[in-house]
Amino acid sequence: MSEALELAKEAAAAGEVPVGCVIVSDGKIIGRGRNRRESDKSAIAHAEIEAIGEACRALGGWRLSGCELYVTLEPCPMCAGAIINSRISKVFYGAGDSKVGACGGVLNIFEENFGHKPQIVGGIMREECAGLISEFFKNLRKA
Amino acid sequence: MSEALELAKEAAAAGEVPVGCVIVSDGKIIGRGRNRRESDKSAIAHAEIEAIGEACRALGGWRLSGCELYVTLEPCPMCAGAIINSRISKVFYGAGDSKVGACGGVLNIFEENFGHKPQIVGGIMREECAGLISEFFKNLRKA
Repeated sequence: MSEALELAKEAAAAGEVPVGCVIVSDGKIIGRGRNRRESDKSAIAHAEIEAIGEACRALGGWRLSGCELYVTLEPCPMCAGAIINSRISKVFYGAGDSKVGACGGVLNIFEENFGHKPQIVGGIMREECAGLISEFFKNLRKA
Repeated sequence: MSEALELAKEAAAAGEVPVGCVIVSDGKIIGRGRNRRESDKSAIAHAEIEAIGEACRALGGWRLSGCELYVTLEPCPMCAGAIINSRISKVFYGAGDSKVGACGGVLNIFEENFGHKPQIVGGIMREECAGLISEFFKNLRKA
């Protein structure tokens, strides 16, 4: 998660809401991503999507069974859906998201009948992950 | 929807599950996509994701408010989430998907409290859209 936090800090430095993500296979990071919504001007440029794309390229296929995903913020429905589609086995997230979280924040999509149910653990390094986001918005309001 | 069907046929010809998608702004197509999961070896290479990415580039921003999305198959959670994230106003889909559909098939994600609720109309050219998919799987079993 500390690697994901570093990517989140990179996002903040680029003026993006600070969210970072890494994907691990057999103890090795095979995908990295950070939020690029503003710089890419794209609704799909979330940290998890970038990391999943990179991990698929690294493994040479769309199935990421056995992989673990670490993300600093609870995944939104799009990213939770991408986790289902890629068959990622375990998801660790930092801060919860009561507005768009799809792992319990608004609903838990993994409890629905979508055929793939990864393990989910929330609250990993929660303070650091949430602190980065609240600091970002505090600075934004000051600017 | 007939333009989306043409893209779905392209997908089938490339050995992909035939799903196609177009995004319309002010009566003009600004994004096109088709399923490329196998050829791109990527869990995120769905028709809607490609079309939304192209539409964001066309409009120069991540907000697709006012746009309409036409897709031959009911969107999965990832694509329904991307529709929420991009603020697309209206979604028209062809065939329903009882296994991974997120617009009523398994659950209706747009009824949840995610802050953006596009209009949804299913069953547009349902027979053509569903027929293309069942024909694809019939041929796959024969092969």
